[in-house]
Order: sequence, then structure tokens, then C-alpha cells
Amino acid sequence: MTDHREIDAIRALLSSKPRPVGWAERRHRIEEVGAAWPIADDIKVEAVELNGFSAEWSLAPGSDASHILMFFHGGGYCSGSIVSHRRLVTEAGRAAGARTLAVGYRLAPENPFPAALDDAIAAWRFLRGQGIKAEHIAIGGDSAGAGLTVSLINALLASGEALPACGWLISPWTDLTLSGTTLETKDAIDPLIHKGYLLELAEAYVPAHEHRKDPRVSPLYADLKGMPPLLIQVGSDETLLADATRFAAAAGEVGVEVTLEIWPRMIHAWPLWNAKLEAGRQAIVHAGNFVRRCINGAER
Amino acid sequence: MTDHREIDAIRALLSSKPRPVGWAERRHRIEEVGAAWPIADDIKVEAVELNGFSAEWSLAPGSDASHILMFFHGGGYCSGSIVSHRRLVTEAGRAAGARTLAVGYRLAPENPFPAALDDAIAAWRFLRGQGIKAEHIAIGGDSAGAGLTVSLINALLASGEALPACGWLISPWTDLTLSGTTLETKDAIDPLIHKGYLLELAEAYVPAHEHRKDPRVSPLYADLKGMPPLLIQVGSDETLLADATRFAAAAGEVGVEVTLEIWPRMIHAWPLWNAKLEAGRQAIVHAGNFVRRCINGAER
Repeated sequence: MTDHREIDAIRALLSSKPRPVGWAERRHRIEEVGAAWPIADDIKVEAVELNGFSAEWSLAPGSDASHILMFFHGGGYCSGSIVSHRRLVTEAGRAAGARTLAVGYRLAPENPFPAALDDAIAAWRFLRGQGIKAEHIAIGGDSAGAGLTVSLINALLASGEALPACGWLISPWTDLTLSGTTLETKDAIDPLIHKGYLLELAEAYVPAHEHRKDPRVSPLYADLKGMPPLLIQVGSDETLLADATRFAAAAGEVGVEVTLEIWPRMIHAWPLWNAKLEAGRQAIVHAGNFVRRCINGAER
Repeated sequence: MTDHREIDAIRALLSSKPRPVGWAERRHRIEEVGAAWPIADDIKVEAVELNGFSAEWSLAPGSDASHILMFFHGGGYCSGSIVSHRRLVTEAGRAAGARTLAVGYRLAPENPFPAALDDAIAAWRFLRGQGIKAEHIAIGGDSAGAGLTVSLINALLASGEALPACGWLISPWTDLTLSGTTLETKDAIDPLIHKGYLLELAEAYVPAHEHRKDPRVSPLYADLKGMPPLLIQVGSDETLLADATRFAAAAGEVGVEVTLEIWPRMIHAWPLWNAKLEAGRQAIVHAGNFVRRCINGAER
């Protein structure tokens, strides 16, 4: 039988620390929570400065440094960092047998749209400039970072460039117009993400309300035809469930290879807590197998 | 790169043989197509007569005879048989490492609802009567047979009985009210399943229009809470795509473990053509791994 004590303990931890009000305080909090479980001793990390933002390489023993998982952290385009997501990214790289590049793109409200997307594109160009083949790169992200993952791939599609091997989306935020029905039906059970908070984030990243349906901001409304294979992982107990299920349906409708996994009892971006959560580790193993298969050019 | 010639050849074959009009002719046609690729030489099959309908055991070398994949064929509740689906079922059993029981439930219009569901329940009781543990049984089906799979599990849930380990749904028909949007958007690209034909089938199985939203007939409208893990596989090029994506969302919303796979370019119930279709064999491998994991009690 599945043991629910782990996820219940994480729920209790999160409930005991309500989200602060200011952006600086929120950024501090997500790093504090993320750093509670340090990265494994055998991971090598190396900082790299790009044009106006930071990134970080990581490499686990035995991973292939010529194959890359580039990762965009979540935090609603307003918080989250290389530090907050270091444990998730480094363990995902280990599972995928790939080097990782975590991208510390610029945050709103100081840097609203399209700053994050500009930095995502710049990070992609940096990788390609290092001589890495597009088909040896997987792109992943959680929450807003998953939306950014799709927006980056869409930008490459629009400009006719070579595409990454695949996309990995954890609890993706795909609709900044907040039209998903699970925002209401999961409001009481989701310990983290509620409509008022999402509205704050959307206002910070895209101040003009009429621009929130822009497909570069809300990839649910993008033309997804031609996207590489996608793995979408979402918890059953999160308000953004419908952002994942609607996006899966939209991508599948235009012929994209989609695998959607809905994880019972799991909450927003639960693989972040992998150090203390078996279902987080299992989700990372699934994602690692998916990324490994795609960046090695194997069939489904 | 994926080779599209195989699926294109199957499309051409199907287009060259339009569906006949009468039920008898349709039943003959589906058996003829299904029998075009015989079962492998190393499979042992054995007929069994249940109360008013037939079933068939199969066993591949090395499979565990105490673990069962019970399978309900498709054909819109009006056609399809043990013969038409023998290749699919026997290869799925091999992939799952399990014995299979293919169920030749009674067909409409001669035997409308609830005959098929009654037979499905009787087949389940037969299996349990053989001393097979519920948690060692997986249930699967394609199209109408996938709907029947869900309806059977719902019946067991409603009566508080022990549940099978999992459900495997290929191109499930979950909504006999025909409200899915892809009935229109995929009409031109789907070579097999169109709204007029589905209406004929629905009228034959459930003559009274007002009963077609009955959750025992259209499991999209059932209370799915408590279902075991589900693997749902659907092609991107089929009119029933939205029956799969909406059902996945509905099951996930009430906390069911769901994996939804959308397969590009694939058509309705493509694993049927596995003898000549690599993507059919791959889908069966995925399903086999899923069933094997569940009937052996392992975590996701």
C-alpha cells in the first residue's frame, strides 16, 4: 500500500509556513524551503554567467556531458531560483544520465514578460553555441518554468530552428487567464496555489490583462503543431490540474506525442520534495527514462 | 525518424474495404480483418463456455498462469469477437507475463444493455471462482470494450467488492451521448469511426436515447473515485480522442492514478494491427509493463 505519511508531512510543513507577502520575502522563503535538503555529495556543480543572468551546470557520476537537460524553475515568474530547485534539477540529471543546465532567468515584477522568454532563448543559444546538438537537449521545467519550456520550444518552432529532443513539464502553468475549472474544485485541497496568488503573479509578469492570452504567455492557446514529445506530470490535488489536462488534450489534438501522468494525492510540483517523498523520486525516475530515451534518439 | 509507411498501408487497406451495412456482414468483416495476422505459434489457447457466452484462455511461454489479463474486445457492442482480437490479446498477455481471458460477451442489437455488462460481471465472478485473487487480475479492452472495462470496475466499486489491480483502456468509447469535440475535428482524418456509425451503435446498444448518459453506459459520467490505476492509450488521429482525454481528466480529478498516452498518427485501436505496425507493438509493450507492474503489486 502507498504510504501517505510522507506527503501529509510535507503538507503540514507547508501549512505551518504561510506564504509571505513581499516578493523579496517570497524569494527568500522558496530558497529556504528548497535548501532544506541539500544536493547529493557526488554531484559536481559549476556556475556560469550569461548575458544579464546566471546559470549552473551539474553533472552526476556516469552521466554523459554531451547530452543536456536544460531546466527552468518555477515560482510564478516572480520567485524561484537555481538554489531553490538545485536538488530537483541535479537528481533529474542523474536519472536522465545527462548534464544539466539550470537557468536563473530574470524575474518579474522587476522584469516582466518577455524578459523570461528572452533569457530562455538566450540560454538555448548559449547551449547551441557550446556545440551541443539540438537533438541531444531536453528542456524541462515546473509550474511557470514548464510554461516557459513550451514558450521557448514554440519560439524555436516559429523561427524554423532545430528543436530539442523533448519537453518535460511538471505541474505546468499554461493558462494565465486562469480559466481552468480545477482552480475552484481543488481550491480547498491544494495547500500551495490559489487563484488570488496566481492573479498577483499574472499581474506582475503580464501587467496588461488583455495580453494574458498571448500564446507566448499562455501556451495553452499556442499552435502546438510540430512540438517534440512531451511528458506532463501533475498531481491530482492541485488547482492547476486542468492546466495540465487541457494542455495534454490540445497538444495531442495536433498530433504531438503526449504522455500525461496524473499522480494521486500529489501537490503542486511535488518532485521538488524528492529527498523526503518516494512519489517525488518515482516521478523523477519516470522523467529520467523519458529524457534519456529522447536524447538518445530511441522510439517510444 | 518514425516510418509512416506502416500506418499509411493500414489506412489504405481499411479505406479499400468500406464497412458493410448489416450486422452479420460487419461481424464477418472484423473477424476477417482480425484473422489476417494469425497468432504466434507458441501461444496455447483453450476455449471455455460460461453461462450463455464463450471465453478463451491464452498462455505464452514463461507467463504466470496465476496472474490474469481479462480482455473485452471492441466493436461498438455490436461486433468484434474472440477471433477478431486474438492476436492483440495473446500478444498483450505475452507482454504482461500473464494468462489472458478473452471474453465473448453477448452483442447488440440482439442483446442490448445491460447484457454485455452482465456478462462482464459473470466473467469476473468466473475468474474469482477459479481462485484467482482480485489483485492478480488486470482488466483491459479497446473501444466499447474499454468502456465495458470501466463499467465492470464501477459495478465492483458500487458493490464494495475487491477490485482488479488496474485497467488498460485502448481508444476508449466513454460517451455514448457523442458530445466529444473531436467527433467533428477528426472526422476527415479518422478512417474508421464516424458519428453516423457511432449513432447506429448507440441506438443498437441503448435504444432509449435518454439512457445514454447512464454512467453504466457512458463511464465518462460515472463517479470514478476509488478506481485502480488506469493506462489510457489513444491515437491522435481518431474521432474518439476527446473520449480519452476527457475521461483521463475526470479520473484524475477524483484522485485516480492515470497515465494517458496520445500516439501521433495512430488510428482507432491501432494495437490491433501489431503484426504489421511497430507503434502497435510498442503500445502493447507499454501496456504489458503497466499490467505486469500492477498485478505484481509494485509501485508506480
